[in-house]
Amino acid sequence: MTHLTDDLHAALSRQRIETPSWGYGNSGTRFKTFAAPGAARDVFEKIDDAAEVHRLTGIAPSVALHIPWDEVDDYAALGRHARERGVDIGAINPNVFQDDVYRLGSVTHPDEAVREQATQHLLDCVEVMRQTGSRDLSLWFADGTNYAGQDDLRRRKHAMRSALKRVHDALPENGRMLVEYKLFEPAFYATDLFDWGAAYAHCVAIGEKAQVLVDLGHHAQGVNIEQIVAFLLDEGRLGGFHFNARRYADDDLIVGTSNPFELFCIYAELVAAGHSTDQRTRTTAQDVAYMIDQSHNIEPKVEAMLQSVLNCQEAYAKALLIDRDALKDAQQAGDVLAAHRALTDAFRTDVRPLLAEWREAGGLPTDPIAAHRASGYQTRVTRERGTAVGGGGYPVKEKVMGT
Amino acid sequence: MTHLTDDLHAALSRQRIETPSWGYGNSGTRFKTFAAPGAARDVFEKIDDAAEVHRLTGIAPSVALHIPWDEVDDYAALGRHARERGVDIGAINPNVFQDDVYRLGSVTHPDEAVREQATQHLLDCVEVMRQTGSRDLSLWFADGTNYAGQDDLRRRKHAMRSALKRVHDALPENGRMLVEYKLFEPAFYATDLFDWGAAYAHCVAIGEKAQVLVDLGHHAQGVNIEQIVAFLLDEGRLGGFHFNARRYADDDLIVGTSNPFELFCIYAELVAAGHSTDQRTRTTAQDVAYMIDQSHNIEPKVEAMLQSVLNCQEAYAKALLIDRDALKDAQQAGDVLAAHRALTDAFRTDVRPLLAEWREAGGLPTDPIAAHRASGYQTRVTRERGTAVGGGGYPVKEKVMGT
Amino acid sequence: MTHLTDDLHAALSRQRIETPSWGYGNSGTRFKTFAAPGAARDVFEKIDDAAEVHRLTGIAPSVALHIPWDEVDDYAALGRHARERGVDIGAINPNVFQDDVYRLGSVTHPDEAVREQATQHLLDCVEVMRQTGSRDLSLWFADGTNYAGQDDLRRRKHAMRSALKRVHDALPENGRMLVEYKLFEPAFYATDLFDWGAAYAHCVAIGEKAQVLVDLGHHAQGVNIEQIVAFLLDEGRLGGFHFNARRYADDDLIVGTSNPFELFCIYAELVAAGHSTDQRTRTTAQDVAYMIDQSHNIEPKVEAMLQSVLNCQEAYAKALLIDRDALKDAQQAGDVLAAHRALTDAFRTDVRPLLAEWREAGGLPTDPIAAHRASGYQTRVTRERGTAVGGGGYPVKEKVMGT
Amino acid sequence: MTHLTDDLHAALSRQRIETPSWGYGNSGTRFKTFAAPGAARDVFEKIDDAAEVHRLTGIAPSVALHIPWDEVDDYAALGRHARERGVDIGAINPNVFQDDVYRLGSVTHPDEAVREQATQHLLDCVEVMRQTGSRDLSLWFADGTNYAGQDDLRRRKHAMRSALKRVHDALPENGRMLVEYKLFEPAFYATDLFDWGAAYAHCVAIGEKAQVLVDLGHHAQGVNIEQIVAFLLDEGRLGGFHFNARRYADDDLIVGTSNPFELFCIYAELVAAGHSTDQRTRTTAQDVAYMIDQSHNIEPKVEAMLQSVLNCQEAYAKALLIDRDALKDAQQAGDVLAAHRALTDAFRTDVRPLLAEWREAGGLPTDPIAAHRASGYQTRVTRERGTAVGGGGYPVKEKVMGT
Repeated sequence: MTHLTDDLHAALSRQRIETPSWGYGNSGTRFKTFAAPGAARDVFEKIDDAAEVHRLTGIAPSVALHIPWDEVDDYAALGRHARERGVDIGAINPNVFQDDVYRLGSVTHPDEAVREQATQHLLDCVEVMRQTGSRDLSLWFADGTNYAGQDDLRRRKHAMRSALKRVHDALPENGRMLVEYKLFEPAFYATDLFDWGAAYAHCVAIGEKAQVLVDLGHHAQGVNIEQIVAFLLDEGRLGGFHFNARRYADDDLIVGTSNPFELFCIYAELVAAGHSTDQRTRTTAQDVAYMIDQSHNIEPKVEAMLQSVLNCQEAYAKALLIDRDALKDAQQAGDVLAAHRALTDAFRTDVRPLLAEWREAGGLPTDPIAAHRASGYQTRVTRERGTAVGGGGYPVKEKVMGT
Repeated sequence: MTHLTDDLHAALSRQRIETPSWGYGNSGTRFKTFAAPGAARDVFEKIDDAAEVHRLTGIAPSVALHIPWDEVDDYAALGRHARERGVDIGAINPNVFQDDVYRLGSVTHPDEAVREQATQHLLDCVEVMRQTGSRDLSLWFADGTNYAGQDDLRRRKHAMRSALKRVHDALPENGRMLVEYKLFEPAFYATDLFDWGAAYAHCVAIGEKAQVLVDLGHHAQGVNIEQIVAFLLDEGRLGGFHFNARRYADDDLIVGTSNPFELFCIYAELVAAGHSTDQRTRTTAQDVAYMIDQSHNIEPKVEAMLQSVLNCQEAYAKALLIDRDALKDAQQAGDVLAAHRALTDAFRTDVRPLLAEWREAGGLPTDPIAAHRASGYQTRVTRERGTAVGGGGYPVKEKVMGT
Repeated sequence: MTHLTDDLHAALSRQRIETPSWGYGNSGTRFKTFAAPGAARDVFEKIDDAAEVHRLTGIAPSVALHIPWDEVDDYAALGRHARERGVDIGAINPNVFQDDVYRLGSVTHPDEAVREQATQHLLDCVEVMRQTGSRDLSLWFADGTNYAGQDDLRRRKHAMRSALKRVHDALPENGRMLVEYKLFEPAFYATDLFDWGAAYAHCVAIGEKAQVLVDLGHHAQGVNIEQIVAFLLDEGRLGGFHFNARRYADDDLIVGTSNPFELFCIYAELVAAGHSTDQRTRTTAQDVAYMIDQSHNIEPKVEAMLQSVLNCQEAYAKALLIDRDALKDAQQAGDVLAAHRALTDAFRTDVRPLLAEWREAGGLPTDPIAAHRASGYQTRVTRERGTAVGGGGYPVKEKVMGT
Repeated sequence: MTHLTDDLHAALSRQRIETPSWGYGNSGTRFKTFAAPGAARDVFEKIDDAAEVHRLTGIAPSVALHIPWDEVDDYAALGRHARERGVDIGAINPNVFQDDVYRLGSVTHPDEAVREQATQHLLDCVEVMRQTGSRDLSLWFADGTNYAGQDDLRRRKHAMRSALKRVHDALPENGRMLVEYKLFEPAFYATDLFDWGAAYAHCVAIGEKAQVLVDLGHHAQGVNIEQIVAFLLDEGRLGGFHFNARRYADDDLIVGTSNPFELFCIYAELVAAGHSTDQRTRTTAQDVAYMIDQSHNIEPKVEAMLQSVLNCQEAYAKALLIDRDALKDAQQAGDVLAAHRALTDAFRTDVRPLLAEWREAGGLPTDPIAAHRASGYQTRVTRERGTAVGGGGYPVKEKVMGT
């Protein structure tokens, strides 16, 4: 039985998971968005839901916004609303993929006017950062092509770099831009930021405030994500995560549900880097933005987010339990299986009692999901909010906020 | 220079490609459906577009319907409209994935009432077949689960078989049901009809009118599709195709655009099976329903469909040019590279002159795409139809036909 | 804390894992076979190693043979040697892929003489089954092609069926043939038994003694193996497993090391089918042959096999702990996340104390790997056997037994 | 009919493909190396075969060496032998993966002594470069791990960088090192140089003489290789290719046989970059080392190499035919399908007549494979060399040169 030492308690108390506003509203696949009873209808309700997740878990103290889905006239008021609920505004996520003008791309579009419009939206979001006090601008682009020859890949690369550079140079002093990459979807021939290497090369060329964001669902099959994490940490260029789970493509399921061992291995690299003797690596590890990015298509949204946060907590707790001396000794001795077991022994450990103990010490419900189910929250919001008609796939501003 | 022999002419004249009504309307990804100027707004306009494709190519004489997207009160009138335009109504495609009740499945749903509702819709579509004179009921199910444990996989299998059996036994005498499988999407843990083997096992258990439908985008990476085609032909269970192209998942791009050699290899198996000494294999090959199933997200829809039909025609023409005696001799001699070249020599051949000759002989435009661009068709329908607001991803009845 | 009930004790005592003789000798990749000190040099030493694994774990009471790697003049004597060590001879695995004559295939080769030679070897192995009292003939074929056009896919399919049928009809009365499939390797264009569907179709056509064997490393990326397992169990056609782990291709690593959750989900289906109300499904589940097929390229072979057996034991133990009533209730209620947690709660449980208790009750070392390390076995065999020079990749008879 | 303009003639005459010495000897998979009659037994015979390929094609004037497989006492004499046959010595390929000491890695091994031994071999190969006048040191490492936790990923990264840096700084003035990456095999958990991004980051950190080498078989499924090529060209860091073909893993088949359109798209990017207005991009494109790296397991080796060279020539010729003005106009206009067709029109063109014309002008056989088959070369070398017994998988020095 593993005990909650002071070190473990402190480490667990430092964990932070940011939940996304869009995870609380209706979403779906290209085939159908099922309307979920009680799904949040606007940014205020999304913040309410995020606050509920934080209230029950204690480690989800901020919520990411998506602009324009979460656009408001008065961000100061929005910030006050959030703080009153016990959470902060987190990363700002611009949207340059849902206007009709973006059919062939945004910052890499063939037409300069479209590129300018897209870049201007990014710069507007930098302004939102200032108003919300957000540190991170989280950038994902749908830009790419569907057919070989459709566009000039190098021209698009230049356009991407140019836009990123402009935005980078406009960031607040302590601001940071997180550059997300993706293998495919919605582009099916070539995505302009197609893998971590492409994002990394751009970041290095652009400046110190540009960091790579790793979304767990954005890789080809078989790719070793924890190795990318270790590589970026070592280069001082890991900025953040979009956590989710997948078996196939960018399935955007609840993080940790399809291969919990992979999530554990990722946290193992993060914990190890946090102890690195290399200053840059250690600093990078301590500054990582942990964010969830999921699409809860068939399951209740608040409960799904609770499960996501708890899955991250379990993975992190297990990573904290790794006997790093035994691991290092076995690695240095070339004892392949002993080293592997030093890692997997921690994974095999059931950390639920440990986490219950930590929660109790912090005045949190020992079983947040049971507490949520017992609280009547879902029933109440369903009554208050009703069942909004879903759009297709990702939300579109008009539909979600249309009233 | 390859010449148009009588045999070639006759073979080319026998080719048939069915285009889908839904390929002429707005569609997109879960992120966005871009509104295409002039996109068809209802089933009558879709039939007009399909007729234009047939007018220019001569080998696309039928159009598949999707129910309820293409639901009308009077199918006899719809059939007359089609025939007046020069095309026939083809396969009927039921939709059991866009009602809110289908959140957890249709014919495999945990709730018997939902299963019954879904099965009833399939039976209703059998009635539509009778009214339209359609031979094929083309069945695709979104049914599946997103999380391990979510449902009992064997219970769902039994439910699938039971529903398929009921529908099978209700088919018209000359009717046929085409059972489509898919690796994933929109289900991300397990899809109930997950591969050709699952579809095949159901078909064999159900009856002679059940055949497997191969959608080119529904396989895992690396899967050899022409081998599945050859296997099913040999077992007498290949019913049809949904043609499209992909690099990653079910990208639904224009067929032949990402790996034209694969499309050629598929046609090579079909042509070979058509010459088989085995009666069942030969009959199966002659009865295959060739249908397109694509999502034209960023390109003009009628031109995209023209390109699709022409890509199939080129692949088929090349397959007809294979020197089958040379191929067989090299295969039997174990001459690996000579056999490979007997195949690839046909693929390397530029069949465009041959096809121009065939078109000329049939009074068709020698360059259908140039003819389409010169015809003013796109300009006219854009003026007449305007730009309908797209929904998200796949069309939903209310949105597309909302007027 | 989970307690060892009588039911759990009985279930755990019923588990059986068969280890393969070839897992104890040198093996490697196409690049290099590293010579492992103390690796078994002949079938007698392999049996000694297998016996050591059984002595320490109590659930590995049989060893699979590979013919001709393990060919001996007197199988009765070999059987006595095995029984004296406490193990039995298990499945017989014919080899029709390492003679020069098999360059273009074995039972599907273009040349009838080669097909006949290969089939004759299979029939010879049926004779070995009689002499060793083996129940299972485990069939894997390297047959396939590297280039499109190289051979006629349907001709090869016919040849495969014909050979399988002959062998099937020659099986002993209680004998069984396990038909293994594989996506690719060593064939890189088309493998004749390319997936479970192909193996299944052959088995159904051939007869009741033909069953499908699932090797965990033989699928395309993303394929849901537990669903195939559930499907085959339900159809009464799951014959056995080749357990191992992979991230990429057929990596043949220690089972359970790359995605332990997947192994758990497979066992969850097996345990569930064992409780099925369907007689055929239940019988099938009880008759499954659980075999390991791995390539220990860089790690000590006996310890690797111990780890493999223990990983299977943990996965099975966790599957036994699933609260099946809670699971079923949640599934029927459509409570997606509660159903998922009913499954994962069992996976999250640390079963090591439970298994230690079971071992203690059976007079086994509570930590088999520690016991093995402490036993001096590895030191002793290294001294006695020395370090045999490895061949490339898979063993070849001359090299392994040449001295 | 496309005519051979002076520009086309000149461009075709500039093409260079380097063949690898190891492609002429026996090789196989981990399961079996089939002995090929007449396969080259030593480096002199390999050079003879390479010279035959160049004699027939005119565009394969150099041969890559693998050390120590091709180790000789007197490289000056080897160079003379080559030049007498009409070919030059090309890239030098060190081997740090076949000694027993490399079981856990070479330059990233846990043990410093092994790291030093491996690095020393690389430095010895730099000395071979000086003696042979080779420009390129082509580096591939099998280094990696099989199990999570087996070793410290960041420590291995540091070791890799350190070794690369030492070798880089020892290169001759005009020398270059080509850093190859690979997704997996023979490492099955993590490969130290796992993708182009990792290789690129190392190259940028190390110095100007370090460039990335793209092997067509070393990517995850779905990865867009031509986009990586375009990216690296634009960054001035594309050093060379290892050409081959694959469907699944690193299948090492004849280049262009599984997806000829992909090979064409790669050449299209190279030709386009060669016309770039950016000096660095243009220079990089002109300096690319085009090398074949294949494993001819079942087909005649010299004919396989001829086919490989010819497939590259066809792809390049088609890329030269792209109407770049039409392509650019359509791209800038956002005319998706016209742009795609500007590319595919070139691919559809049958360039065999054009290439026959070019060969005739250069005094080459118009059909090199027919000429080879008619020449009696294969019969002669089979008589002279006999059939060497193959080892397993990749050659090992002792086996290939042992006589």
